[in-house]
Amino acid sequence: MTMVSAAHETPAALPRVVLKKGREGPVRGKNPWIFSQAIERVEPPQLEPGAAVEVRDYQQELLGAGYYHPATTIAVRMLSFGAQTDLATIIDARIAAAVRLRERAVGAGSNCYRLINGDGDGLSGLVVDRYAGVLVVQFLTAGMDRMRNHVLSGLRRALAPRAIIERSAGAVRREEGLADRAGVVSGEPVDEVIALENGLRIAVAPGRGQKTGYFLDQRENRRIAGGLARGARVLDAYCYAGGFSLAAIAGGAGEVIAVDTSAPALQWARRNLELNAMGTARIDLVCEDAGRFMAKSADRFDLIVLDPPPLARSRKDALRAQRLYVELNQLAMRAMAPGGMLMTFSCSQHFRGEDFFAALRTAQVRAGRHLRTLSRLGAAPDHPVMLGHIEGEYLTGALLARLD
Amino acid sequence: MTMVSAAHETPAALPRVVLKKGREGPVRGKNPWIFSQAIERVEPPQLEPGAAVEVRDYQQELLGAGYYHPATTIAVRMLSFGAQTDLATIIDARIAAAVRLRERAVGAGSNCYRLINGDGDGLSGLVVDRYAGVLVVQFLTAGMDRMRNHVLSGLRRALAPRAIIERSAGAVRREEGLADRAGVVSGEPVDEVIALENGLRIAVAPGRGQKTGYFLDQRENRRIAGGLARGARVLDAYCYAGGFSLAAIAGGAGEVIAVDTSAPALQWARRNLELNAMGTARIDLVCEDAGRFMAKSADRFDLIVLDPPPLARSRKDALRAQRLYVELNQLAMRAMAPGGMLMTFSCSQHFRGEDFFAALRTAQVRAGRHLRTLSRLGAAPDHPVMLGHIEGEYLTGALLARLD
Repeated sequence: MTMVSAAHETPAALPRVVLKKGREGPVRGKNPWIFSQAIERVEPPQLEPGAAVEVRDYQQELLGAGYYHPATTIAVRMLSFGAQTDLATIIDARIAAAVRLRERAVGAGSNCYRLINGDGDGLSGLVVDRYAGVLVVQFLTAGMDRMRNHVLSGLRRALAPRAIIERSAGAVRREEGLADRAGVVSGEPVDEVIALENGLRIAVAPGRGQKTGYFLDQRENRRIAGGLARGARVLDAYCYAGGFSLAAIAGGAGEVIAVDTSAPALQWARRNLELNAMGTARIDLVCEDAGRFMAKSADRFDLIVLDPPPLARSRKDALRAQRLYVELNQLAMRAMAPGGMLMTFSCSQHFRGEDFFAALRTAQVRAGRHLRTLSRLGAAPDHPVMLGHIEGEYLTGALLARLD
Repeated sequence: MTMVSAAHETPAALPRVVLKKGREGPVRGKNPWIFSQAIERVEPPQLEPGAAVEVRDYQQELLGAGYYHPATTIAVRMLSFGAQTDLATIIDARIAAAVRLRERAVGAGSNCYRLINGDGDGLSGLVVDRYAGVLVVQFLTAGMDRMRNHVLSGLRRALAPRAIIERSAGAVRREEGLADRAGVVSGEPVDEVIALENGLRIAVAPGRGQKTGYFLDQRENRRIAGGLARGARVLDAYCYAGGFSLAAIAGGAGEVIAVDTSAPALQWARRNLELNAMGTARIDLVCEDAGRFMAKSADRFDLIVLDPPPLARSRKDALRAQRLYVELNQLAMRAMAPGGMLMTFSCSQHFRGEDFFAALRTAQVRAGRHLRTLSRLGAAPDHPVMLGHIEGEYLTGALLARLD
């Protein structure tokens, strides 16, 4: 299953996607996305959205297998780069590998994590989050939607979950020509499940909330925030369900202010505080725009977590996003007390890495601050990204500290 | 001390460095290095190496203070960007800030860490590592050497160390026109000090070993390795004092092989095993080239730590380094067992960040592997780097996992 070799090809009658000469480089580099411009021809030419295909270079050498869509910019999503081209067999192996990875990479204090991270687990178009005994699944592409029953029975076999809830929705599905689909797939309906994250109890409503219910990618960063919080005045800006606030209180924060414009989010944060018997003596939950709140909080906080929703939804948005990230970070930097720290993030796929650090440098000059980077931060290790898939990374973060 | 303003200038009679028009940008961005080409004139023109200076833009606006060297490429190293230009006052504030940062950022299980990280603590040319009650200091530049007595008494006041050992040596000092200086500065001579890292005992000989005795920047990564080691066959390539091996054994590794060409390093690793009552039942210490060892270990290890010495010592070396990092990582990738993990690092200042990831991508293709990135790794937070000082980052790492 590891090396491509003509001698080991399966004699399957799969449709073929043949690449243009010189366009096979990214595929050989294990990038799972093939754009339509790279394709020479499809045999037979009329394929259904989501059809399984094998992919060959212009000399007919087999490169791997995936599924095809005739109308999307990403024309092929590769599931495998070896001689094995049977998608069902590949998917079974991928699910098994995903389970094994989380057994090693997720700490003992957590039973909620991303079980399958799409391309990063070799399963483009599929996202599965685990919350204790409940799985929340998203089928995002026509190709993965066609494999739905096979995937669901594979998940049942591997994990015997109490329930599987589907949340297949969003812009990607619409581009693929698919309607949204949501509901209980197996087991009983689940109103609320109590999951453990770094030893803290988190209430998750798998049928509500954003994404699959909670933002699991920040688990490691919440742990880091907890370790920095002792005695600190903490601001949790865009607090959502209060994950960072809980970690700060557990870490001995002196005072936490959690800010969000969403009343239901603050209600949820309150529920999570109750679940951990934390009361509200050391936390204020403030329903307000986080930028506005920071603007009136100069030099006030020892630790600020700034985790805004994605501000760049597309490549075209990047300039506007740049301006917004500079503004927000400038406000946060001004709100840092002397010696204070800032954990700041961009979860915009189109504004990340060095672009984000450049925005931080601009914000530093405008804020008149002298800051150092203590750590670069990213998503927790249950959110793998293929090494050959540069487009796949999205969460960039930094832990900064004021010098003066 | 935060904003530059003509009204708050001190009337000191410091020599002045005046920048060329349009060359003040990096200084305003808080980059501590000013290259000689950016300088219009020095007043008075004849200054001693290491002389304290104030820095002004071409319109005579004060930008901050630092020290000057007439013969080095980096002509000025800035210590401060505010109206305060008295270096002694600035240094006192910087030492106090450095101590406070480590109190927050270093976990309870560790009493060895970098106390002062040169530019990243606003103290260009000064490195101080703490090993329990012992400080090891390095004065690397003429400017910091001139402040030596002031720095040493500041350290004594702040930390009351049992001993201070000096290890001022290396290429930077030679460029600055300084001879090496080493020895006991205060307190009794210290043959060996036992420090704690993540709860593990580490023997450090402050007068021997590389750098200040031990590589403290990997503390967080050793903790991560320990968390991934349960039941694993582990390879610690370029093991040096065995820090990763100790973490792996403490984390429940099934079997550890630690490889280094240096017999004294392996002896040191053995001493550290003894100190932690680990014996040698679960570890083999192998005196061999790590590349050669990996070449005969295909598909063998569940966790590999590849932490070679810096392979690029200068910008000119970068191409050669690229080839070496590709070769070594290719060997490591082939030595990964199915589902195995690789923690791989470059500590070369001249080969880092995206260059390093590009080398990993090339290595992946040559090794015929399909790998995903679980985390990007860097130095522990007691090794801060100024946000405005892009040249200051050096340790790049990745945690990779095999898919197939």
